[in-house]
Amino acid sequence: NVPTVGNDINPMLVLRDFDYGTVKKENGRTVREFRLTAKTSTIELNSAVTFNTWNVNGRVPGPTLRAKEGDRIRVLFYNQAGHSHSLHFHGVHRAEMDGVKPIRHGAATVYEFDAEPFGVHLYHCHIAPVTRHVSKGLYGLFIVDPPKPRPPADEMVMIMAGYDVNDDNRNELYALNGIPDYYMMNPIRIYQNQLIRMYVLNMIEFDVAATFHLHANMFQVYPTGRTLKPTQETDVITMGTAERHILEFSFRYPGKYMFHPHQDAIAENGCMGQFEVIS
Amino acid sequence: NVPTVGNDINPMLVLRDFDYGTVKKENGRTVREFRLTAKTSTIELNSAVTFNTWNVNGRVPGPTLRAKEGDRIRVLFYNQAGHSHSLHFHGVHRAEMDGVKPIRHGAATVYEFDAEPFGVHLYHCHIAPVTRHVSKGLYGLFIVDPPKPRPPADEMVMIMAGYDVNDDNRNELYALNGIPDYYMMNPIRIYQNQLIRMYVLNMIEFDVAATFHLHANMFQVYPTGRTLKPTQETDVITMGTAERHILEFSFRYPGKYMFHPHQDAIAENGCMGQFEVIS
Amino acid sequence: NVPTVGNDINPMLVLRDFDYGTVKKENGRTVREFRLTAKTSTIELNSAVTFNTWNVNGRVPGPTLRAKEGDRIRVLFYNQAGHSHSLHFHGVHRAEMDGVKPIRHGAATVYEFDAEPFGVHLYHCHIAPVTRHVSKGLYGLFIVDPPKPRPPADEMVMIMAGYDVNDDNRNELYALNGIPDYYMMNPIRIYQNQLIRMYVLNMIEFDVAATFHLHANMFQVYPTGRTLKPTQETDVITMGTAERHILEFSFRYPGKYMFHPHQDAIAENGCMGQFEVIS
Ligand SMILES: [Cu+2]
Ligand SMILES: [Cu+2]
Ligand SMILES: [Cu+2]
Ligand SMILES: [Cu+2]
Ligand SMILES: [Cu+2]
Ligand SMILES: [Cu+2]
Ligand code: NA
Ligand code: NA
Ligand code: NA
Ligand code: NA
Ligand code: NA
Ligand code: NA
Ligand SMILES: [Zn+2]
Ligand SMILES: [Zn+2]
Ligand SMILES: [Zn+2]
Ligand SMILES: [Zn+2]
Ligand SMILES: [Zn+2]
Ligand SMILES: [Zn+2]
Ligand SMILES: [Zn+2]
Ligand SMILES: [Zn+2]
Ligand SMILES: [Zn+2]
Repeated sequence: NVPTVGNDINPMLVLRDFDYGTVKKENGRTVREFRLTAKTSTIELNSAVTFNTWNVNGRVPGPTLRAKEGDRIRVLFYNQAGHSHSLHFHGVHRAEMDGVKPIRHGAATVYEFDAEPFGVHLYHCHIAPVTRHVSKGLYGLFIVDPPKPRPPADEMVMIMAGYDVNDDNRNELYALNGIPDYYMMNPIRIYQNQLIRMYVLNMIEFDVAATFHLHANMFQVYPTGRTLKPTQETDVITMGTAERHILEFSFRYPGKYMFHPHQDAIAENGCMGQFEVIS
Repeated sequence: NVPTVGNDINPMLVLRDFDYGTVKKENGRTVREFRLTAKTSTIELNSAVTFNTWNVNGRVPGPTLRAKEGDRIRVLFYNQAGHSHSLHFHGVHRAEMDGVKPIRHGAATVYEFDAEPFGVHLYHCHIAPVTRHVSKGLYGLFIVDPPKPRPPADEMVMIMAGYDVNDDNRNELYALNGIPDYYMMNPIRIYQNQLIRMYVLNMIEFDVAATFHLHANMFQVYPTGRTLKPTQETDVITMGTAERHILEFSFRYPGKYMFHPHQDAIAENGCMGQFEVIS
Repeated sequence: NVPTVGNDINPMLVLRDFDYGTVKKENGRTVREFRLTAKTSTIELNSAVTFNTWNVNGRVPGPTLRAKEGDRIRVLFYNQAGHSHSLHFHGVHRAEMDGVKPIRHGAATVYEFDAEPFGVHLYHCHIAPVTRHVSKGLYGLFIVDPPKPRPPADEMVMIMAGYDVNDDNRNELYALNGIPDYYMMNPIRIYQNQLIRMYVLNMIEFDVAATFHLHANMFQVYPTGRTLKPTQETDVITMGTAERHILEFSFRYPGKYMFHPHQDAIAENGCMGQFEVIS
């Protein structure tokens, strides 16, 4: 049972992949250009279910864009996905750059704004029904680093999402970074006592909220990534749709440890993974 | 498509309407009297759906009551709504004033208590089934200002609610301040760089939680209005039924900006609005 | 309508019952041994509904285990419940002690770990489907006290749970500490101005979240019990499945006061109780 059969991108490639764009200097300032193309592609959710995604650059989730606070962001958005889409970014920007206007198939636009404020943001299509456009796969993280970088860590992204495979506005399958149960079958290898910094996003539509739970450990929470110090320590945190945080933790003992929403109906339908802690 | 046809009260009148009551001095102390009458009235949720509400003073949501911490509150409650109702207030008060006893049609009672502690509270009918009595419209905000007033701002109330129009214990429509999609069709005009102070309440029954998301901006959160300084900054906050907060923000750039729960199934069925930021 | 008919354990016995285990000293260190046996027993949820539970030591919820940070915990787990179960603890421990491996009927195992960090944790069966094993009753609280004890208080546990009585993955009934509506019919007697410390857990499956609301009062929140000072004051707090906190409050006036999730569909199906405050 290899869930990547037929998939070009797998969750292990998504996990630690940060796209800093093409860097230019304009008038002494850092400009990061990202070429994001809306596409359709079929992925194998498991050995029985094939799903037609709407996505960015052929991946679900889309690329994790990353910049430093104050950088200029220039997104060259091209729609090759068959019908209208858009890219709506979270973070502060002008109304014209808000990405709520449809970009027709075959058309392109440029979204340009400053990366601010530092924190964990996201982007997603904002064409109605947004439930459909998001759950089909048109979303990704947008991380803005603080002026003084956070301490070194093993950084990773973790996006919870749901798949409504029969179009009844309920999710039959769930995933972490795109493919159901992938990290259960392919544990994420991390080192004992290594600081892990997880950028976690709840992108599940149709269920109003989900928790994130880590086994046998506690994590520090930086809400929306808007703080430099943690404001809470727990092992279960409730996240409504589009909430995202930085979670930090390290494992003291080697072995395998699960993580999943503690809504077990969500976890057991694909939104579950495990770490393998190496001594 | 004018959603106010047939409605005496519209969300624009509700938005910045604060009812400070009839003020008296008794033994040197400020007493605020509020005359609240439970009524039934029909509102047009949209051009196709008429809904029979149970409400306070003919409005959904009911009046936003407002006082200063320590004021005496005297609510003269009169039930003209056909069957039993009550007014249960949040905030600290004696058991006798808790508003869980049915007041029959045609009867009246007085709820009297001190306005405390400062914060964002609410009132609603507490007659079973409370799901029905609340979702029919019997609720409102009760704001208690701190002894030293908060800084000047453009203040507004924003109440998320759901309508179960076919009595199946699910919401078919949602609204901000009473009428689905009203602020989408009639954007709220605010000024660029003006501090906005929003008193937001999730009064949605049947869905366990909803988020509040503001486009292209971040907001400061004062949880339950119980702090004088914000404790969090984000652009998506999860609120269970009856949670309410103060959110503060200002827009740096002119233009139109949406706000809505990020549960798009809720947003796209009426719980969506927009600001028009004037330079 | 006496809901305890046929039940050996009732919520009043559960309320203030803390199990400190059998204490031993080993190499100068405190070891607490707990004998926890998975069982099946039938409870009367109300006069019409009998429910076959899977439980720990014949109670739903299971015993509230309690230790001081740094104590050694030794759980002697014996499964007499008919098919495989396990005990998964929250808190920090080694992978081998994580309780995700099935223990067959008639088999036993020992879970041993240090009680850390201080806070409010839980334990529950982790055999798939976890939704079923948890909602059948296999869970309990695990409280780890800080090195310097919290101030004296009237301490109690309050566990929200749901019962799927017809196996359709939805809850028809809800309960506080095991039995629907028990504390409505049998109010919890507390003293006026007495500090109450409530260890509250949301163990509801199938609904993604619930709030906890206390009438006519505010409470201080210690999230996950991981702080010695409160970080929030409110009267409605949203808790996803497996979230748990310490809430502190006292009542200034005598009388009866309800508490319940403010999702009234949950409250009115059994997840409701009341205090009787004695002067
Ligand atoms: Cu789209
Ligand atoms: Cu969004
Ligand atoms: Cu009512
Ligand atoms: Cu209430
Ligand atoms: Cu089990
Ligand atoms: Cu758990
Ligand atoms: Na910007
Ligand atoms: Na579906
Ligand atoms: Na009062
Ligand atoms: Na309905
Ligand atoms: Na331990
Ligand atoms: Na059921
Ligand atoms: Zn689209
Ligand atoms: Zn766990
Ligand atoms: Zn687990
Ligand atoms: Zn009524
Ligand atoms: Zn947005
Ligand atoms: Zn939006
Ligand atoms: Zn079992
Ligand atoms: Zn209340
Ligand atoms: Zn109540």
